[in-house]
Amino acid sequence: MTLGNGNQIRLADLPLRPELVGEEPYGAPQLDVPVMLNVNENPFPPSAKVRAQMGEAVRELTKTINRYPDREALGLRRDLASYLGFGLTSDNIWVANGSNEVMTHLLQAFGGPGRTLLAFTPTYSMYPEYARNTHTNYVTVPRRHDFTLDAELVLGAIREHRPDIVMICTPNNPTGTQTPVSVIGEICAATDAIVIVDEAYQEFTEVPEDSALALLPRFGKLVVSRTMSKAFALAGGRVGYLAAAPAVVDACRIVRLPYHLSAQTQALARVALANTAEMLGQVDVLRDECQKSQQWLRRLGLQVVPSQANFCLFGRFADRHAVWQQLLDRGVLIRETGPDGFLRVSAGTPEEMAAFRTALSEILHHQKMISPDEETTK
Amino acid sequence: MTLGNGNQIRLADLPLRPELVGEEPYGAPQLDVPVMLNVNENPFPPSAKVRAQMGEAVRELTKTINRYPDREALGLRRDLASYLGFGLTSDNIWVANGSNEVMTHLLQAFGGPGRTLLAFTPTYSMYPEYARNTHTNYVTVPRRHDFTLDAELVLGAIREHRPDIVMICTPNNPTGTQTPVSVIGEICAATDAIVIVDEAYQEFTEVPEDSALALLPRFGKLVVSRTMSKAFALAGGRVGYLAAAPAVVDACRIVRLPYHLSAQTQALARVALANTAEMLGQVDVLRDECQKSQQWLRRLGLQVVPSQANFCLFGRFADRHAVWQQLLDRGVLIRETGPDGFLRVSAGTPEEMAAFRTALSEILHHQKMISPDEETTK
Repeated sequence: MTLGNGNQIRLADLPLRPELVGEEPYGAPQLDVPVMLNVNENPFPPSAKVRAQMGEAVRELTKTINRYPDREALGLRRDLASYLGFGLTSDNIWVANGSNEVMTHLLQAFGGPGRTLLAFTPTYSMYPEYARNTHTNYVTVPRRHDFTLDAELVLGAIREHRPDIVMICTPNNPTGTQTPVSVIGEICAATDAIVIVDEAYQEFTEVPEDSALALLPRFGKLVVSRTMSKAFALAGGRVGYLAAAPAVVDACRIVRLPYHLSAQTQALARVALANTAEMLGQVDVLRDECQKSQQWLRRLGLQVVPSQANFCLFGRFADRHAVWQQLLDRGVLIRETGPDGFLRVSAGTPEEMAAFRTALSEILHHQKMISPDEETTK
Repeated sequence: MTLGNGNQIRLADLPLRPELVGEEPYGAPQLDVPVMLNVNENPFPPSAKVRAQMGEAVRELTKTINRYPDREALGLRRDLASYLGFGLTSDNIWVANGSNEVMTHLLQAFGGPGRTLLAFTPTYSMYPEYARNTHTNYVTVPRRHDFTLDAELVLGAIREHRPDIVMICTPNNPTGTQTPVSVIGEICAATDAIVIVDEAYQEFTEVPEDSALALLPRFGKLVVSRTMSKAFALAGGRVGYLAAAPAVVDACRIVRLPYHLSAQTQALARVALANTAEMLGQVDVLRDECQKSQQWLRRLGLQVVPSQANFCLFGRFADRHAVWQQLLDRGVLIRETGPDGFLRVSAGTPEEMAAFRTALSEILHHQKMISPDEETTK
């Protein structure tokens, strides 16, 4: 028997689960630099008017902050249903501390030991973390060469891997690639699995109403995931939600731990939703900035993945880390993610994008590129 | 293959994990009645001054709410360390959305499939939920007849069940029973398991400084869990935390999903901690009310478990549900929990406790009691 020795005990001395040994806490570097284009945030904070309403809402709710919050978050779920439209009601909505927690609830209910989650790479790097934390088997199949998905590819993968849950991210992070609603309909019609469509960036697409939400009346095992972190400019508020059949919401209610959503989170989200037009007011600007960035990067001769989100993937650099570092040295933080040789840049304010273009222009001629014909290795 | 049929799909038609079938969402009834003595909340809300500070803090932080929050919650962890004392620093502290999430992180790191959590019943009814959600084997051993624990009982149970994690709740919910720090020291010295001491109600005890925190320098596998929901009057704010060796905190950082704690939760908790004296100002009143309630209940000839928390267990009623319902009919909500025949009442304001005594007096003479000599069945 080994006695612990207080503060000096090392992680290697603790009975950490074997699959976690050597793992690092997940997350992009949090660096304090002038131009932050690395985590697909909306660069526009709420107005002074909305911020005053948020402060006032908190001053008001703290009259009862000594009491537990509404465990069902019914008011917020009603507001979210009304925001989404499509005839949805609060019974169709589940909400939690970011999509991270929404996805965890779904995997706790429908995944877990002996069950499989299927995703299509390259895709959002949190999916394997959700699977790991819930002991769900995580299987991936590559997207087509241009990062799109069609029903044939997805249904072939389902036949091969027999997943319990299928994850489709559209627009896909980190490629920005959209999967048409008609393709999702074909997939839902041909599988018994739970199909999660992650529409975190839906509001940035050309036609946001063209959403998998339209399919919910037909498919009881379809789940559409959304977030207030991106278009809604509330990344710090941590509000993710889903729309699905009421039975899916009931399944989440079984696994959620009680009072998972604080009174202040419910209140801030409701203020944001009461000011939807304003909170989403800069989405058009960001969509434009993203499209303009893609054009500019292409004009430089770079390879750019067509994106419908507020970010885009460009490259391919023989040494992408060097490019990332040299941009950082110039005060511009982007993300080193996606297939080999690519970098991802978020759409910032026009000023931030100008700074990005200046910085990249300064360093680009030194870079060795990978030709578009060479296979990506990841 | 069964096609879903949208909103009409039933839970039974969904591929819910088998162990969740038939489960209900956990939680005490949330009823709107005049006297709420059912979930061990602090009945005193923050002052107008503190509430104004909380509102102002949120107005200020929303300047950057479009950005993700501090993933490490370093400022809040520093404040919590300073509040606890015992030479602790932010490296010793982990914080999450309520103790529910803190415990989940611990079980994700050290529990999981093939691992066992041992607890001593009757105890907090969430422990089996944490185990269920993380696929940890949950084993219980009964406390002594008077609900106390000694090292012999605990170490005997450890020898028999060989748990990976041992959970000791002190003061224990729902009995209010304390386990001396010396007993916890004996246990830690004789086991290799992670020992979690749940001190959610520690501030209500006669000598709050007499805490398992004092043992941390000696035992690297000891974890002390605390919450701001009870004495700190912040149940709606959802802030739980732990103190342990930095390596335990690192283990939690591996399994936590990034940005788990919102900017507004970090800010509200810090305002509360900056006003510690005031937030804890009513703890003495509640301790007194709880001790007076215990004396009053004993004078009525009821069996009362000696409690060091802000609640007490009393009975035993042949039909405790009838007593619970008749109190509710009189506007007093308490909790139907604990061993057969017992009810649990939280310490409220002096006015609330007077209402409880009046209501109980009205109905008590109709009740059939169970003699103290009869065995409890649970």
